Amino acid sequence: MENFVFFNCTKIIFGRGTEEQVGTETKAWADKVLLHYGGGHIVRTGLKAKVEESLKKAGVSYVELGGAQPNPRVSLVREGIKIIREQGIKFILAVGGGSVIDSAKAMALGALYDGDVWDFYMGKVEPTQALPLGVVLTIPAAGSEASTGSVITNEDGWLKRSCDHVILRPKFAIMNPELTYTLPPYQTACGVADMMAHIMERYFTNVREVDLTDQLCEAALRSIIKYAPRALEEPENYDVRANIMWAGTIAHNDLLGTGRIGDWASHMIEHELSGIYDLAHGAGLAVIFPAWMKYVYKHDVQRFVQFAARVWGVDPDYHDPEKTALEGIRRLEEFFKRIGLPTRLSEAGITDDRLEEMAAKCTDNGKRTVGSFVKLTKADVLAIYRLAV
Amino acid sequence: MENFVFFNCTKIIFGRGTEEQVGTETKAWADKVLLHYGGGHIVRTGLKAKVEESLKKAGVSYVELGGAQPNPRVSLVREGIKIIREQGIKFILAVGGGSVIDSAKAMALGALYDGDVWDFYMGKVEPTQALPLGVVLTIPAAGSEASTGSVITNEDGWLKRSCDHVILRPKFAIMNPELTYTLPPYQTACGVADMMAHIMERYFTNVREVDLTDQLCEAALRSIIKYAPRALEEPENYDVRANIMWAGTIAHNDLLGTGRIGDWASHMIEHELSGIYDLAHGAGLAVIFPAWMKYVYKHDVQRFVQFAARVWGVDPDYHDPEKTALEGIRRLEEFFKRIGLPTRLSEAGITDDRLEEMAAKCTDNGKRTVGSFVKLTKADVLAIYRLAV
Repeated sequence: MENFVFFNCTKIIFGRGTEEQVGTETKAWADKVLLHYGGGHIVRTGLKAKVEESLKKAGVSYVELGGAQPNPRVSLVREGIKIIREQGIKFILAVGGGSVIDSAKAMALGALYDGDVWDFYMGKVEPTQALPLGVVLTIPAAGSEASTGSVITNEDGWLKRSCDHVILRPKFAIMNPELTYTLPPYQTACGVADMMAHIMERYFTNVREVDLTDQLCEAALRSIIKYAPRALEEPENYDVRANIMWAGTIAHNDLLGTGRIGDWASHMIEHELSGIYDLAHGAGLAVIFPAWMKYVYKHDVQRFVQFAARVWGVDPDYHDPEKTALEGIRRLEEFFKRIGLPTRLSEAGITDDRLEEMAAKCTDNGKRTVGSFVKLTKADVLAIYRLAV
Repeated sequence: MENFVFFNCTKIIFGRGTEEQVGTETKAWADKVLLHYGGGHIVRTGLKAKVEESLKKAGVSYVELGGAQPNPRVSLVREGIKIIREQGIKFILAVGGGSVIDSAKAMALGALYDGDVWDFYMGKVEPTQALPLGVVLTIPAAGSEASTGSVITNEDGWLKRSCDHVILRPKFAIMNPELTYTLPPYQTACGVADMMAHIMERYFTNVREVDLTDQLCEAALRSIIKYAPRALEEPENYDVRANIMWAGTIAHNDLLGTGRIGDWASHMIEHELSGIYDLAHGAGLAVIFPAWMKYVYKHDVQRFVQFAARVWGVDPDYHDPEKTALEGIRRLEEFFKRIGLPTRLSEAGITDDRLEEMAAKCTDNGKRTVGSFVKLTKADVLAIYRLAV
């Protein structure tokens, strides 16, 4: 097991009606905040009105900035930073899913930085300070409500890049599973793929003797696999939505990565896809992760056997571990299909004419490798895209 | 699933050599601290000298208070509070296991309270403030390094009582598995029983549809069961000790209890034992938990079937769920025996002449019930003690 620091101060306020606490939770941090959100969904469901009422009741004034979109853009982040500075705002309240939260995190970083916020995402500077932010979560998927990460897309070159730092963990996350009842099936499924990917990125490691976190990863995966189809069948089943929602947080608050070295190649390979095509991140992961697995499983067949046996209940063929490993990958693909996700680029409406370009961008023109379980060159990444066609 | 708040700000610094960071971590909180510990163990192993050197190097001065013993006493807590006040100390550094940490937590509470610290443990007052404290952990067991709880024994009447509040979570916990190499086998085993009990108290719940935390509880239990015998066979195997140590924290930082209502009867029944007899808490739990299970399993046979199947790998007899449930309990007892723990009062050298007295104390003379999975009266508690004879 590797040395680690685990420091997660996000206060999780989970359950029915918890959005009514947003005013008092926010008031503990600031009197005037930026209320950041996405499109009209939170208006239509009445959540926005509820949040505003709670803020007013607690004596918190706010400036609004909507418009965060899937694969959130740096242009809107810059706009938010300008507003924050002009209005002397000290706290950001993000109401929405991962895109809104990631966008808010970028603003939190940029507001206290003299240069351009994109510097953090290009690795030019390390974060040292950020405004505090809070979350009312509406989409269980990205885990950004308690994570250290933020992923932003720069329209200039369509680069999708991430920034990770412990100061980016939100101060609180209000999570009412009822708010997810209205999520369309496809978005529910994309969220499921995203949280599963967050676990699997940590699961496929070369670090030995990490059975505790192995078991915890497998446990969370099994529970997501159990509840996801039910979330599609019974979208207003509170307990089903609650288990999924909490799993999404645990999948990515890094508890499951403690003492391990994660891989993250699939995320980086996927980012090029959804950076260019504006595909849902979860759908992209459902396409890329199985292809990545098929490409790398021989590196540690026994880990894939364990994945097949413990996560998917595959009865191992002890004389043919490869067969067992491949059966685990097949089950994962089958599961993604069952919940309505594409598992091939073609099913996502993506042709094979820009694979070279994406492989180049992903590896900085072949100057770097991606991943840790197996270090992938540009040629490897291209081969994985081809397996996914 | 129940509504919950999960707020755990303890910074975990885990791994080889991490005790050398104690000075800088402490310095972030205070320039002068109370250094609290137990007996001579940390002197003999050289840990105390290392901690002192790190504190000095960071420019932190300290006042020492040793002498915390298993089932830590309120008299020493009062002594600590006096020192803290006289010396104007603002931070407590606990170096040791659960007893030292619980003792430090009590001092942290009492130092900022006008009345007697025991009031908190008798439920006369609710905690509202506490001094911050940090931990260098030497015994994986109680989980106090990241928990909200503190258990103290009052010599006046030998009452062992607990106080729980989120402000009691330590600010940091330094955890180097190498520091546990020198733990005697019996103490290692007692720690294992304690952490398993912390999980099982949360596991046996009447709340339905909590599969995610069910699975996480089962996962942690399986990993502890896997590594515990190896910790006895290979006490200096780093990875084995590391998995056990981290499991002890996760078992009791309340992640595994999120959305559930735990039971805690076994802890309360055990506290009367170790309050009177000064038995190791983990050994007492190894005696009481199986007895509690035998007494209550009919309340929800299927939950015990799940426990047997998923935790112990029992192949369920679908025509005879009770048989499966009992086999799970038998496996738990067998496991405790295998790692060298008593599973009967007689094996712990305790006779049956004070069972009535303990049942009375545990239930406040029959005026309250204990537990939540099944609410136990004084007669029930007495029956459980008798099953444990």
